[in-house]
Amino acid sequence: MKKFFLLAFFVPSALLAQQYQPGMGDSAFIRMISDNILTSRSAYNNLHTLTKTIGGRLAGSPQMVKAEQWGKKALEDAGADRVSLQECMVPHWTRGGKDKASVSYQLPDGKKTTVDLDVLAIGNSMGSGAKGVEATVLRVNSFDELENVKDQVKGKIVFYNCPFEETFIQTFEAYGKNVTYRVDGPSRAAKYGAVAVLVRSMSHSMDNHPHTGALHYNDSFPKIPAVAVGLRDVEKLDTLLDNGIQLTARIVTYGKMLPDTIGHNVIGELKGSEFPDEIITVGGHLDSWDVNEGAHDDGTGVVQTIEILRAFKALGYQPKHTIRFVLFANEENGTRGAEKYAEMAKKNNEKHLFALESDAGGFTPRGFGFTVNPQGWIKLNQWRHLFTDYGGDHFTDGGGDADIDPLHETFGIPIAGVRPDSQRYFDYHHAVTDVFEAVNIRELKLSAVNMAALLYLVDQYGL
Amino acid sequence: MKKFFLLAFFVPSALLAQQYQPGMGDSAFIRMISDNILTSRSAYNNLHTLTKTIGGRLAGSPQMVKAEQWGKKALEDAGADRVSLQECMVPHWTRGGKDKASVSYQLPDGKKTTVDLDVLAIGNSMGSGAKGVEATVLRVNSFDELENVKDQVKGKIVFYNCPFEETFIQTFEAYGKNVTYRVDGPSRAAKYGAVAVLVRSMSHSMDNHPHTGALHYNDSFPKIPAVAVGLRDVEKLDTLLDNGIQLTARIVTYGKMLPDTIGHNVIGELKGSEFPDEIITVGGHLDSWDVNEGAHDDGTGVVQTIEILRAFKALGYQPKHTIRFVLFANEENGTRGAEKYAEMAKKNNEKHLFALESDAGGFTPRGFGFTVNPQGWIKLNQWRHLFTDYGGDHFTDGGGDADIDPLHETFGIPIAGVRPDSQRYFDYHHAVTDVFEAVNIRELKLSAVNMAALLYLVDQYGL
Repeated sequence: MKKFFLLAFFVPSALLAQQYQPGMGDSAFIRMISDNILTSRSAYNNLHTLTKTIGGRLAGSPQMVKAEQWGKKALEDAGADRVSLQECMVPHWTRGGKDKASVSYQLPDGKKTTVDLDVLAIGNSMGSGAKGVEATVLRVNSFDELENVKDQVKGKIVFYNCPFEETFIQTFEAYGKNVTYRVDGPSRAAKYGAVAVLVRSMSHSMDNHPHTGALHYNDSFPKIPAVAVGLRDVEKLDTLLDNGIQLTARIVTYGKMLPDTIGHNVIGELKGSEFPDEIITVGGHLDSWDVNEGAHDDGTGVVQTIEILRAFKALGYQPKHTIRFVLFANEENGTRGAEKYAEMAKKNNEKHLFALESDAGGFTPRGFGFTVNPQGWIKLNQWRHLFTDYGGDHFTDGGGDADIDPLHETFGIPIAGVRPDSQRYFDYHHAVTDVFEAVNIRELKLSAVNMAALLYLVDQYGL
Repeated sequence: MKKFFLLAFFVPSALLAQQYQPGMGDSAFIRMISDNILTSRSAYNNLHTLTKTIGGRLAGSPQMVKAEQWGKKALEDAGADRVSLQECMVPHWTRGGKDKASVSYQLPDGKKTTVDLDVLAIGNSMGSGAKGVEATVLRVNSFDELENVKDQVKGKIVFYNCPFEETFIQTFEAYGKNVTYRVDGPSRAAKYGAVAVLVRSMSHSMDNHPHTGALHYNDSFPKIPAVAVGLRDVEKLDTLLDNGIQLTARIVTYGKMLPDTIGHNVIGELKGSEFPDEIITVGGHLDSWDVNEGAHDDGTGVVQTIEILRAFKALGYQPKHTIRFVLFANEENGTRGAEKYAEMAKKNNEKHLFALESDAGGFTPRGFGFTVNPQGWIKLNQWRHLFTDYGGDHFTDGGGDADIDPLHETFGIPIAGVRPDSQRYFDYHHAVTDVFEAVNIRELKLSAVNMAALLYLVDQYGL
């Protein structure tokens, strides 16, 4: 047994010194990619720098500018043939101060109490200002319920309390079902005269940290303050309301939207040896929310993108097609970087083949979601076994993410999104807990291995 | 889109109120199991009690006794038809005090320095006593290297420094390759006159916490002290030794082996409706190391075992065969519970069909490892699609774990081990970090869902 293990130990070491050779076989090259990435600390070190020395990097913030400069240098250091900054105008929302909320109530014995809530203003929301907003709380669990009580909404603070569905295996389904309360809830309540909203955090976390994220105001209605509430505080509110106790909430927020400012997509390129004008894109988004380090969202997608470039160069893999490694601007509250990238691709008559994004956290790989035609699926099914050893062989229908959707809409090309394990994602998503320490180095790197394998196969055989 | 989501929300809620009906279909019942377990807090609450109010529960400790009493009550509360304690003699090792180690050395400029190391005595090891043991450090990376320098070993402290293989995708392979240095390394070094050993922790964690675990002394050689060293301290030692600096290590440990004492397997039963004398076993081990809360190892296996019983009862599923839910004694440093369980099964002429263990951490499900004959594989391949939605469809060859291996050896029956994602396991394994907070509630429960599905299928159709 020992002899066998020693052999297993030395073979990968030998491979590490090797380089890509055309004709060496897909399986052998993917193993080489895996050995290279799993024995490198680059991705983890890059994530450390991005999260700990730059930190939260919302569009328009000074950290956004720092992150762009860091991203440019990181892509150069990884060996890009060329790195460019693609300018785009980005929204510039600022939180403006410390978000606060509390509820006051009178117990049946007459005792008056005020309890602070752990809240975060929802991104893009207009603040109440220092004087705050105070009103009776009206709880609804759905928009249908809101419609049923619309006559009672005027002057109230609406509390959207739709729980994350625990029975969905994929947590993104729970998010997809509920996120409308955060995005559209404020204007839906304002339509009937609400003065502010409390939104149950988009999470099933066991802690009390609130989860921010973007809202979208409907310009037809007043732009009322909106905050996300931590789940333990939601339980408190529920208990009180279930006992028929009337709650008065007070919300103090300072959010405001400043004029649009200049941001950039950061684009590294490996030039194609046979088809330099045909482009494959891989990327993540460089921006994050302001309250955390943007580790899983989407620091991991950024450093995986850079890591694939580094590994291809280290292994001497010169792609047939040009591969663009893109750190997108402003995914969180505007997707202006994504729109600009597709717009410029169209304007420049570029030929795009495929795009892949990592924006679902740096967790252990499960597979990919694909938007691809039936012939593409035939190819994918032939490749699937190559991913089994690396954990990324669950290929599901429906792929791509916010940063590459415009490219698909513009060119109709196949796109894919990495689908790592989703169970822990919404513990961290848009909360203060999304920090470097929440990322496991091996999970981060293994997803990069699967991404690199997919890009290699698409480069070699098309999709 | 909203209507669709509302529908998806209400269907599971409706299912929750339902009960198992013969003929309802495997897929439908597995969905029912999933909905039930994913909406229950039982497993998580049980884990909290076991880890936070009982804590570390090494064989022979007072916490072992408390854990047995708790386990009995938990199985009763979950609805077992009968719960019994099966007595077995277990080893009784105690750490005896605070483990300490340091290295002293002289730098080229003549400056003398002493640095403390973060260490844990290896389980079952004999302590140095308060006076400690001090000697020159001799580093080897393998037993082959040890053999090459065997003439230099006398009077030294051997430092086993074989790194975890990072290129293995499954971390248990890295453990399987290296664990011999912890288990056999002390006696292999004592054979040539070493006075103690330092062992590189069995981990690729990014922190410095040492990882304990069991050793096995060869009675032919002196039983020398042995400690595991944290990986950041290993890096320090490596840097010094790589620079040709001679190190003198001092180790102070207090471990001793007391007389064997009485422990128990805790066994809950659901009586089979058709074949009450034919037994399916599912279990985890109740003991843990003394330095942590034994959360992933193996609190999660214990509470998953109890959770499956709870869910079957809640859903009105009366198995055809008797299912035994077993919390095994003393897996960590003796496997006496496992041996007793198989021994009594043989003595009582029991008929066993299948056994399943969860002892690889409470992480997101990936699948199962099976030890089963070719006909069994045909069945398993027919079932595999039923696990895809729940993440447990990677069925691999070679299954079972330490607590059910003796049952396989005794009866030749098929056995299986849960194989959750392994990337984070050795960050926590046998270290102080293996605590309740390291377990994600959804990952824990999803693995229980897959286990319950497998038990149901084996109960219905055999294997």
